[in-house]
Amino acid sequence: MQVVEKIQDLKHIINQLRQEGQSIGFVPTMGFLHEGHLSLVRAARRENDFVVVSIFVNPIQFGAGEDYEDYPRDLERDQHLASQAGCDLIFSPTVTEMYPAGYATYVEVEQLTDTLCGSHRPGHFRGVTTVVAKLFNLVMPHRVYFGQKDAQQALVLNKMVLDLNMDLQFQIQPTVREEDGLAMSSRNKYLDPKQRREAAVLFKSLQEAEKMIQSGEIKAGSVKHAMDELIRGGSDSEIEYVEIVDIQSLRPVETIQGQCLVALAVRFGKTRLIDNIIVEV
Amino acid sequence: MQVVEKIQDLKHIINQLRQEGQSIGFVPTMGFLHEGHLSLVRAARRENDFVVVSIFVNPIQFGAGEDYEDYPRDLERDQHLASQAGCDLIFSPTVTEMYPAGYATYVEVEQLTDTLCGSHRPGHFRGVTTVVAKLFNLVMPHRVYFGQKDAQQALVLNKMVLDLNMDLQFQIQPTVREEDGLAMSSRNKYLDPKQRREAAVLFKSLQEAEKMIQSGEIKAGSVKHAMDELIRGGSDSEIEYVEIVDIQSLRPVETIQGQCLVALAVRFGKTRLIDNIIVEV
Repeated sequence: MQVVEKIQDLKHIINQLRQEGQSIGFVPTMGFLHEGHLSLVRAARRENDFVVVSIFVNPIQFGAGEDYEDYPRDLERDQHLASQAGCDLIFSPTVTEMYPAGYATYVEVEQLTDTLCGSHRPGHFRGVTTVVAKLFNLVMPHRVYFGQKDAQQALVLNKMVLDLNMDLQFQIQPTVREEDGLAMSSRNKYLDPKQRREAAVLFKSLQEAEKMIQSGEIKAGSVKHAMDELIRGGSDSEIEYVEIVDIQSLRPVETIQGQCLVALAVRFGKTRLIDNIIVEV
Repeated sequence: MQVVEKIQDLKHIINQLRQEGQSIGFVPTMGFLHEGHLSLVRAARRENDFVVVSIFVNPIQFGAGEDYEDYPRDLERDQHLASQAGCDLIFSPTVTEMYPAGYATYVEVEQLTDTLCGSHRPGHFRGVTTVVAKLFNLVMPHRVYFGQKDAQQALVLNKMVLDLNMDLQFQIQPTVREEDGLAMSSRNKYLDPKQRREAAVLFKSLQEAEKMIQSGEIKAGSVKHAMDELIRGGSDSEIEYVEIVDIQSLRPVETIQGQCLVALAVRFGKTRLIDNIIVEV
């Protein structure tokens, strides 16, 4: 497995692969890899000749006061894990390599980004779409892989790909969970033992929502209220949002019908966790 | 020469060309082709195996009250001229093909776009960068061709290409002029005979600027004042801007040094004309 830091070196390798007609699978990450990331790498491995993983903690998707500086980094461990999962090349550029002095171009998806996480993290998705557009142009992948855990991110990026006519296939893989149901996330590392135990309540609240909806509850308000109670009762946390939205528009629904996303963002101390499930009525 | 309206058909042809290893030259236009466009097509013809010209009057780069509806269109004539100049394929999509219902993604270059034409046409360059990003993704060109007449547009698009790591070569070709010096433009068609005669003063004012600077004048204010007087004296027109800016940053300079762009936008009735020259001290 190669590790490449320079854009020029990456371009050279990608052009070679493209000329040889090899298919390229790409998994963009911010590193500190866990089983969620690795499931994406394995999917890319199964479906492509060559697998690229990018590891880049993207400063422009963090707001002021967010955890950019503290975000966990361990490139050596990441290399080992990515290689084992079938990665052929890690691209881990510096910030200056991606955003040289005078950098000025941004990609923005409207509408889908002003709800859920977007309304609580202004500029976040603009940073995500910009860096991913750059990475897609650099890696020139045939297929790209994202996790369902970051549901809004996946929908926003898929919209960008369609709107900008990018020539690639977009694959979303299921959320990978710990034994107690907590969605895998690099940020789980921040949790102290009590928070870690209590964080299991997030998935429990999603399961409760699913149960209620399967039992015939169609009032979004009732389901959200029950989730709220469960999370507040079972943890010392602060709810940022608990929401049920249409899976296409991400607009909140009053009555649950068709495919909906049940999504939440909850803070345990300074640690912000998100999770979601798709329900269908 | 083929004429293609559907994205799916274009993609099919481009993928074929790419697989065969053919180089693609691309000239994006809004149609109503003149010698300026055709010089770009000929340059593309010389340097590439396959030449694509797009003809699309892009609604999102026109502001409210601008000439989107009235913009001259003549696809039949354009086909004839493009074919003669060496074009292999015209891509002329409908508005719905480019911006289907629910379209929501925009590409924006900051800084370079808030001066000159950008400050007088809010949203204009955002519309240009968005449509051109889409067209680049669709046509997958090796080389793209733009005219010096739209200097700011060329600089903004080149910045987008560099910032977003698009894998293509950016070529800027000299402005093509009528015999009396008026820069070729599809909008010249709007001018009545008196306006058309008077419009020659624009290039005369640029030549006067060049002469003054070559003679040692380095105060931008003096040069702009002389240009202003010449244009007002020689025509019944309204100056939008007459400006001397740094060629890199497009920021106005007080003292002319290094490479500068002398640029102007002037209205003859409802017709807005632009022109520029590069000077070097």
